[in-house]
Amino acid sequence: MKLSDLDLILEKAQEAFVAMNAYALRRRVALMNTIADEIEALGPELVQTAMAESNLPEARLNGEKARTVFQWRSYAEAVEKGYSLDASIDTANPQRAVPKPDIRKTNVGLGPVAVFGASNFPFAFSTAGGDTASAIAAGCPVVVKAHPGHPKTSQIMADAISRGVAKSGFPEGTFAHIFTDTIEEAQALVAHPVIKAVGFTGSNRAGLALVDVANKRKEPIPVFAEMGSVNPVFLLPGKLNTASGELAKQYAGSLTLGVGQFCTNPGLLITEDNPALDGFIEALNQEIVNILPAPMLNAGIAVAYRGNREKMIGQSGVELVAVAANEAADGHGAATVATVSGVDFLINDELQTEVFGPFALIVKCRNAEEVLAVTEKLHGQLTATLLATSEDLASHRELVASIQNKCGRIIFNNFPTGVEVCKSMHHGGPFPSSSNSQFTSVGPDAIKRFTRPLSFQNWPDEFLPDELKNANPLGIWRTVDNEITKSAL
Amino acid sequence: MKLSDLDLILEKAQEAFVAMNAYALRRRVALMNTIADEIEALGPELVQTAMAESNLPEARLNGEKARTVFQWRSYAEAVEKGYSLDASIDTANPQRAVPKPDIRKTNVGLGPVAVFGASNFPFAFSTAGGDTASAIAAGCPVVVKAHPGHPKTSQIMADAISRGVAKSGFPEGTFAHIFTDTIEEAQALVAHPVIKAVGFTGSNRAGLALVDVANKRKEPIPVFAEMGSVNPVFLLPGKLNTASGELAKQYAGSLTLGVGQFCTNPGLLITEDNPALDGFIEALNQEIVNILPAPMLNAGIAVAYRGNREKMIGQSGVELVAVAANEAADGHGAATVATVSGVDFLINDELQTEVFGPFALIVKCRNAEEVLAVTEKLHGQLTATLLATSEDLASHRELVASIQNKCGRIIFNNFPTGVEVCKSMHHGGPFPSSSNSQFTSVGPDAIKRFTRPLSFQNWPDEFLPDELKNANPLGIWRTVDNEITKSAL
Repeated sequence: MKLSDLDLILEKAQEAFVAMNAYALRRRVALMNTIADEIEALGPELVQTAMAESNLPEARLNGEKARTVFQWRSYAEAVEKGYSLDASIDTANPQRAVPKPDIRKTNVGLGPVAVFGASNFPFAFSTAGGDTASAIAAGCPVVVKAHPGHPKTSQIMADAISRGVAKSGFPEGTFAHIFTDTIEEAQALVAHPVIKAVGFTGSNRAGLALVDVANKRKEPIPVFAEMGSVNPVFLLPGKLNTASGELAKQYAGSLTLGVGQFCTNPGLLITEDNPALDGFIEALNQEIVNILPAPMLNAGIAVAYRGNREKMIGQSGVELVAVAANEAADGHGAATVATVSGVDFLINDELQTEVFGPFALIVKCRNAEEVLAVTEKLHGQLTATLLATSEDLASHRELVASIQNKCGRIIFNNFPTGVEVCKSMHHGGPFPSSSNSQFTSVGPDAIKRFTRPLSFQNWPDEFLPDELKNANPLGIWRTVDNEITKSAL
Repeated sequence: MKLSDLDLILEKAQEAFVAMNAYALRRRVALMNTIADEIEALGPELVQTAMAESNLPEARLNGEKARTVFQWRSYAEAVEKGYSLDASIDTANPQRAVPKPDIRKTNVGLGPVAVFGASNFPFAFSTAGGDTASAIAAGCPVVVKAHPGHPKTSQIMADAISRGVAKSGFPEGTFAHIFTDTIEEAQALVAHPVIKAVGFTGSNRAGLALVDVANKRKEPIPVFAEMGSVNPVFLLPGKLNTASGELAKQYAGSLTLGVGQFCTNPGLLITEDNPALDGFIEALNQEIVNILPAPMLNAGIAVAYRGNREKMIGQSGVELVAVAANEAADGHGAATVATVSGVDFLINDELQTEVFGPFALIVKCRNAEEVLAVTEKLHGQLTATLLATSEDLASHRELVASIQNKCGRIIFNNFPTGVEVCKSMHHGGPFPSSSNSQFTSVGPDAIKRFTRPLSFQNWPDEFLPDELKNANPLGIWRTVDNEITKSAL
C-alpha cells in the first residue's frame, strides 16, 4: 500500500463521516442490521476458509459467526433504544436571577476509526468484529487493517460489510479494508490526521506501540487497546476443602479451551498452600496429562508459546508439575502447569507475563497475608475469578476488595473464558490489560468508546437531532430536568 | 514539601480509598452534603480573602461560592440517584445451549486523584471545586495542589473540606491539600504510583506537561485537562443584517465579562465581510472604547495579556480596531478588538492562540466558502456560538455540521461565558480545548471521569454492591435485561 492510497481512503472516510452524521439515526440502525444479514447469509466458504487459516474447529467458528451477527444486531438495538446516546435535557428558566438557558446533550461520533483485529477471533474480534460494529454504531466510518493471520477470511467479511454499506445507500467510505506489509504503514494509519480513534485487540507490545503513535500526534487520539492478561483465579480455603476434584476438572477445561488462546484464559492460580492443595494439583495433573495437544492458530504462535513457556519454567523457583502427554507435532500447544511460591512470585515481575496458550502458573502462598500481598502486587487484569464458598467471601473481605481494584470483571465459582455479549459486560480492565480502563470492548457499551458528548444551548427544536427534540420522536429514555423519562416535553 | 511527605500523604490517600469503597453509598452522599454545609457556613472572610488574592469583585465571588456549594449538592444528588453508576443487570439463562451467566455492572472509583485548580475561579475550579467534588463523588480520595494565585483562599476551603471529612467519619486521607514550590514536585504527584487520575484546569502548556508525565508512567493514567480555547462566534448574514447593533452590545458584554478571564471567552468572531459588518464593527468599537479597564487576576496574568495581545496584533494582516479608552494602571486589562482576513487566518496557525483576557479577533471572510474553510481549519474548541436566524441555520447546514465537529457545546443566539452546572452540560471539547473530549468537567457527568466499570459474574446477592442487589434497595433506575426500570428482580 502506498501512502497516497491511504490519503485517498481517508479522504473518503472523512466524506462518509460528514454524510453519516446528516442521516437519521434509523438509517444507521438499518445499515447495521443489513450488515448482520449479509454476514448471516455467508455460505460454508466463510467457516472453511477460517478453519484453514486459523486451525480453529468448525463448531467453534459456527458459534463465533453467530456471535458476530449478534454483536451487529444487539449494538443496532442499543442505538435504536438510544442507550448509546445518553440523551439529556435541562429546560430553560428565564425567571431565575441569572436566566437559565436550555441545554441538551447527546453523544456524537468522534470521526473515522482505525481498527486492528486479533488473530484468535477471526470473526468476532477482526474485520467484522465488535470494534467495527461499535464504531459504525457510533456514527464513525471504519478503516480496518486486515489481520495477516487470516487474510482470506477477512476479505470475505469485508466484502459482506461493503455489500451492506452499498445496499443501505451509505457512502463507500463508510468502510475500508486495507492490507499493509509493514509496521510503518500501520503506524501511518494511526498517525493520519483524519483518524480520530483506534480500536485494537492483541498483544501488549503491539498495543502499546499504537498508543505511543497516537500520543505523539499533533492532535492526540484515544486508543482502546485490549491487550490480554493472566486472569488470576483465587482458590479460597473453604472451597478447596470441599470440592477440589471437581474444581480441578473445571479449571483444566477453562485453561485449555481453544488451546488456551483467549485473552481471558485463567493462566494464574493463587492460593494458600495446605494439604488439600496437593489433592487439587494431583487432580489437575490427571486432567492435564490426558488433554491431547491441539494445533494453535498458526506456527508463529505455537513457537512463541513454547518459547514463553520455557522462559517461565526457567524462572527462579518455578517447578513444572504437569505437561500434556505429548507435543510431537509442530504447531501444537500442550497444556502445561507449573508452581511457584508466593515469596518467589513477589520478587519477580516476569512471572506476571502472559504466556499465550494453555499454560498455568500456580502461586502457593504460605498464608492469607501472603495471598493479599501477591494480590496487591498484581498488574491490572481483564478478569479475576474466585473459587470460594459464601463463608470464604465473608471472611476475606479485604482480599475481595483488593481483587476488585485489579480487574474489570470479577467472577464467582465460574470461569472467565466466556465473554457474554450484553449490556452488563465489562471487557477491559486496569492497565496493562487494556489501555483505557473506562471503556469496554464487548457489549453495546463498547459503542461509547467512539463517541463524545455534544451540548446544544438554546438550539431551535427543528434543528436539534431527533433524540433531543421536544416531542421525543424516537420514543427513547431521556434524562429531563434530572428525571429519567420517555415523556415528550 | 519533601518527597517523603508526599509518600506519607499518598499512603493515607490509598488507605482512605480502600475504606471509602467499603462504605455504603449513602455515607458518601452525606459526606458531600456535609462539605457543602461547611462551605456554605464560611463567613465573609472567605470572599474578602479571595477578593484580595484575585481582584475579583464581591458579587461575582458570592455567586461563585453559591455555585460551588451547588456543585457539591447536585453531584451528591447524582450519586444518590445512581446516575453516576450506570447500574445494569443481565440475568442468567441456564437453559441456553451455552448457559448464560448472571452479569451485573456498576461504576467504581479509579483510585486517589490529583487535582490542579485554576486561577480564574478560586472557589468553583480550585481546591473545593468541581474536580474535587466529582472525584469524591466517584469514591476517590483527592490530593489538591493548591493554586499559588490564591493560597489563603485555598486554605480556608481546604479546612472546610477537612472539617466535613472529620464530621462524616471519613478517614483523614480522604482529602489532602499540598503547597508545592516547584514544577518538579507537581510532576512527582502525577507520577506517584498511588495516583490513578488527574483533574486539571488551566493553560495548554501546563496541561500538556502533566499529560506527558502521566503517559510516561509505568502505569499510564488518564489526565482530564481543560485547557481553554478561543470559542469562535459565527455571525451569519441573516442575523447580521437584522440586528447588528444589539448583537455588538451583547458580544462586547460577553467578551469583557470578568475582564475576559473565562475559558469560554468568545475570543474569535468569524463572519462574511459585507456592508453590514462595518456597522457591527463600528457598534462594537463604541462599546469597547467605553469599557473601563479593570484589574486582572494578578500582575503576571496582566503582563501576559498585554504581551500576547501585542504578539497577535503584530501578526501579518492583523489590524487593530478598538482598544478600551485607557490602560494606565499596572495589572489592568483593556478590552481590545482586531480584524484579520480569512486568507491571512487560513495560513497562520498562530492566530488560533488563546489570548487570555478581553481580546477579540474578527475574521473577515470573502464568502460562505471561506467561512467553511476557516471552520475546517479550527482547532478543537470548548464552545462555538452561532449568531443566526433560523433561515441562516437552514441555509448553512454544511457549516453547522462542521462547527459541531469542532466543539463540545454549540450555542444559538446566546453567549458561551455562562457554564450552567447541570446534567446536560458538556464542558470539554476536541483537543486541544481538553485532553479528553469524551468527558465533561462541569455538571454531574463529571463524576464519571473518575470511575471505571466493574462487572460481577454469578456473584452472590448479599455480597453485591447495593446498586446491583436483586431488591434494588437504593431504589435507583437500572437497565435490567435491556430495559430501563426501577423494579426489583
